[in-house]
Amino acid sequence: MTKKDLFNNIKIKKSYLCVGLDSDIHKIPKHLLESKDPIFEFNKKVIDATSDFAIAYKPNLAFYEVMGSQGFKSLKKTIEYIPKNIFKIADAKRGDIGNTSSMYAKTFFETFNFDAVTLSPYMGYDSIKPYLQYKDKWVILLALTSNEGSNDFQKLEVGNNNLYEIIIKKSLEWSDENQMMYVVGANREKDFLKIRKLIPNHFLLIPGIGAQGGSLKNISNLGFSKECGLLINSSRNIIYADSSIDFQDKIALEAQNIQMKMKSLLEEQNLI
Amino acid sequence: MTKKDLFNNIKIKKSYLCVGLDSDIHKIPKHLLESKDPIFEFNKKVIDATSDFAIAYKPNLAFYEVMGSQGFKSLKKTIEYIPKNIFKIADAKRGDIGNTSSMYAKTFFETFNFDAVTLSPYMGYDSIKPYLQYKDKWVILLALTSNEGSNDFQKLEVGNNNLYEIIIKKSLEWSDENQMMYVVGANREKDFLKIRKLIPNHFLLIPGIGAQGGSLKNISNLGFSKECGLLINSSRNIIYADSSIDFQDKIALEAQNIQMKMKSLLEEQNLI
Repeated sequence: MTKKDLFNNIKIKKSYLCVGLDSDIHKIPKHLLESKDPIFEFNKKVIDATSDFAIAYKPNLAFYEVMGSQGFKSLKKTIEYIPKNIFKIADAKRGDIGNTSSMYAKTFFETFNFDAVTLSPYMGYDSIKPYLQYKDKWVILLALTSNEGSNDFQKLEVGNNNLYEIIIKKSLEWSDENQMMYVVGANREKDFLKIRKLIPNHFLLIPGIGAQGGSLKNISNLGFSKECGLLINSSRNIIYADSSIDFQDKIALEAQNIQMKMKSLLEEQNLI
Repeated sequence: MTKKDLFNNIKIKKSYLCVGLDSDIHKIPKHLLESKDPIFEFNKKVIDATSDFAIAYKPNLAFYEVMGSQGFKSLKKTIEYIPKNIFKIADAKRGDIGNTSSMYAKTFFETFNFDAVTLSPYMGYDSIKPYLQYKDKWVILLALTSNEGSNDFQKLEVGNNNLYEIIIKKSLEWSDENQMMYVVGANREKDFLKIRKLIPNHFLLIPGIGAQGGSLKNISNLGFSKECGLLINSSRNIIYADSSIDFQDKIALEAQNIQMKMKSLLEEQNLI
């Protein structure tokens, strides 16, 4: 999916919502546990309930790996079930030497057919390069994350910059806005100006709305590019909105609620 | 497995060899492809051939994930097949927010029953903490890796230190030599003195012997602690030593060859 396709989908759905599929067997509605593949059944209902309002889905690999081979079966079925025009992000945060990165790239882009994968920058260019060789796929690099521990190293001062700024600058030598995005936490309002100066046109993947405390309105107005440029993720607030037999109604309502707010924000800024 | 157990195993086997199970369906001997689970059959032969000479095995997760759910089946069987007194490292290089890290910790320490997992430090303390809550398990933190890209960020100057030194120092606040190790590339000879000053007693996991060019002798003499303190990994040089029908004979020979050199080095330094 190209950057243009992504912006087109944003305009059509009037949404930049990414739904995080952090699907945990201990948190899904109990009545689903009777089915043969409860995680897939849950994801199917979540996707059915939210696909009108979401432009991306982001399964978090940890939640599938914890279930071993069955988890990978559920993941594969989930990816196949996601409608074709919706962007599929593997939230994997990998980062390894070249020949291993080639294997991970193959895993996410071929075995599972994701459109994008989140990666950690710590091991440098040759750990990212194998993913960039898939020209129709995306790398989403961790820049400034939403967790408390992000202050340990990401905000270190390196000369006149924070470490995460050095990483963004360096990575601009590797590829451009047509193949790279960055993860920036929704609670990082103060850093958005600096980030948008460095990368005015790149898409940003923003976790941390809701459960992690970020404000949709503030972060949108700080982060918008000319083509929206934001994928704002919500996981737990949407997918665990309800656990009754009709849980998907409440999930749909939650997703629609966010989408309506996004529509207003896009319209206010004349982006759609 | 405790640090003391690990050193005991080193003394018994006169070896600090870790065999990397980067088992690639396209590289294993062709005659194995006829079996139902070629990757497991290959690993079984590698383990049979090397378990007298190795004190640790390190499956690289990427090589199993690329095969989807079948890969995880092969991995699980492999872990179960490794003899009980041998240290099992998940080379996974994960790093994520707390609730996701809890899931990964559960994946590696419960679902797959590894003794240790390699982790990336970029997201800071709360991304590592959930693993440390398993008191009998180990975290192996990336410090200074062997790949070219490690120069992009790991060697950045932050005040008077390189970034990787800052990371080691900070991580000493999180846990100690009984639960943490560090990854240092075998080609980083010049950095070993600095590293051993910071962490004289921690175990180091050293990739980069062989295929990646590091010298066993130099790195051992630079890196030894009072209790050996080294797990030196070899993957491709051992496991792909031969592809004939009797490939395990050559694999055993390669592993024994390294073990004999290790024995001499341990004896020279009066460590055994």
